[in-house]
Amino acid sequence: MKAKGLRSRPRVAVIGGNRPEASSLRAAYRVGQLLAEKGLLLICGGLGGVMEEAARGCHEADGLSLGILPGKSLEEANKFIDIPVATGMGYNRNSMVVLNAEVVIAIDGEYGTLSEIAFARIFGKKIIGLNTWPIEGLIRANSPEEAVELALAEIKRIRE
Amino acid sequence: MKAKGLRSRPRVAVIGGNRPEASSLRAAYRVGQLLAEKGLLLICGGLGGVMEEAARGCHEADGLSLGILPGKSLEEANKFIDIPVATGMGYNRNSMVVLNAEVVIAIDGEYGTLSEIAFARIFGKKIIGLNTWPIEGLIRANSPEEAVELALAEIKRIRE
Amino acid sequence: MKAKGLRSRPRVAVIGGNRPEASSLRAAYRVGQLLAEKGLLLICGGLGGVMEEAARGCHEADGLSLGILPGKSLEEANKFIDIPVATGMGYNRNSMVVLNAEVVIAIDGEYGTLSEIAFARIFGKKIIGLNTWPIEGLIRANSPEEAVELALAEIKRIRE
Amino acid sequence: MKAKGLRSRPRVAVIGGNRPEASSLRAAYRVGQLLAEKGLLLICGGLGGVMEEAARGCHEADGLSLGILPGKSLEEANKFIDIPVATGMGYNRNSMVVLNAEVVIAIDGEYGTLSEIAFARIFGKKIIGLNTWPIEGLIRANSPEEAVELALAEIKRIRE
Repeated sequence: MKAKGLRSRPRVAVIGGNRPEASSLRAAYRVGQLLAEKGLLLICGGLGGVMEEAARGCHEADGLSLGILPGKSLEEANKFIDIPVATGMGYNRNSMVVLNAEVVIAIDGEYGTLSEIAFARIFGKKIIGLNTWPIEGLIRANSPEEAVELALAEIKRIRE
Repeated sequence: MKAKGLRSRPRVAVIGGNRPEASSLRAAYRVGQLLAEKGLLLICGGLGGVMEEAARGCHEADGLSLGILPGKSLEEANKFIDIPVATGMGYNRNSMVVLNAEVVIAIDGEYGTLSEIAFARIFGKKIIGLNTWPIEGLIRANSPEEAVELALAEIKRIRE
Repeated sequence: MKAKGLRSRPRVAVIGGNRPEASSLRAAYRVGQLLAEKGLLLICGGLGGVMEEAARGCHEADGLSLGILPGKSLEEANKFIDIPVATGMGYNRNSMVVLNAEVVIAIDGEYGTLSEIAFARIFGKKIIGLNTWPIEGLIRANSPEEAVELALAEIKRIRE
Repeated sequence: MKAKGLRSRPRVAVIGGNRPEASSLRAAYRVGQLLAEKGLLLICGGLGGVMEEAARGCHEADGLSLGILPGKSLEEANKFIDIPVATGMGYNRNSMVVLNAEVVIAIDGEYGTLSEIAFARIFGKKIIGLNTWPIEGLIRANSPEEAVELALAEIKRIRE
């Protein structure tokens, strides 16, 4: 995969917790894989759980991922992240994860994910939800395939 | 009111939106008033709506309030805030509002308030809700009086 | 000392390192004392060294101090701080220390202090230096008395 | 240039002002070019002046650059940045620019650059200076070639 064209590649954030159920991990892997196949740049928080499985799916489908980390060390990123970014901001990096994407897919998730959902809405980003917080304004998807399709439709709408 | 003793004064954050319904504004005023009467320090985001009414209630009952502002200017604070603190962090100041309190009272609120609820839970703070987001883990109160009573009970529990 | 009037009290930040020489600790104590005598609110980073001695001087002269802390716990503040504010931002809280003051007094200091000097200049604040970094744009003072006099003159200039 | 291998590519931050002298702009361009030729990832603040010229030199030599932006929009990045990252943190993003590099090259610069120099030292990063602030602890270079050589030597030292 060529790095040139990185700048114009559409960006989708995948948010979700460190300790999700097995079905959410599988969904995260599949979402990452599909995003890679569509040539999108995966944005995530760079750590474990949903973040790692999405990055692994992306990596194994030859895609690229950018991980926005809470701490000061790039080593903190899971091993599938291509572009780790350290912030040293702790949980305050959550706003940056969604700020850097055109659309957000939320999978499962605890209160960290809830803060990202809130920031995504503050910044006016659409959020597609897979088995996540029942927040008003979120668009529910029933499968990874549907979630990625909805994300692509939103990117198309924004870019037209 | 003496300033000495400021350090040990228990802190309660009141969070809520800029444009709430009239009933929420009345609740915020009453909560601020009750916190002042109990000798608590009110923490809030320092701007309008719920934040301003809570600060006004506190001010008129001779209490003290600390407002953690998104921008760079202290002038941004509503006129009832005693101790404005500028952050220059925009929406990222939301985490600081709840970080500085022992317990949180949420009244009404939009996505900014939702991010504060999420951060309060991340930081392990109890949240008492008055007509706000139906988030798991929040304790519902039916009146400003009940909300402040629950907040006092939580402070007592923490400090014992 | 009355807490009412807190909002309008002029604010002076005292910045400096955790491990300064004894002469700088004495200067910090004296600056804190003089700020209290003039009725100013002392702003600092809330930790040890210059920050603690300035806060102690202020405290013992019946003044008030606000400490903007790097971590998440108010306990982190030295025991002379009246109003601790937790940020959870680590070194990024340095910008906030100077943002909240009308004028800055720098005493000794290492790289953390240098970052605060830089931010003070970015925000257009005057800095008065006592045995600190030889940065262009800093006004040198030869004693705590002169430093506080220069700070008062700057506040007068701003407020007129 | 292949994107795979992005993760392990050594990172050099180039810091400097928005409005430098012509000779500093030429030096920045040349540094960017050399970093690209050596296969390094350029990290910068993503805006104009030194940041833009370094990114242009890098881009025209087929390298890759990551720009850490103060605002909320990726559009803010100069057109030579391959990987813009929005922070919404204003000047507080300065710490992140140096946090993400193994070594820092400072060219010219005003107070924003001074804050980055301070943060680089706080984080224990070496700084190589080209016509910049005369700060203790900075290593002076006399040409872009020497600056990049010193940066490479430091990366070699760290990675061995």
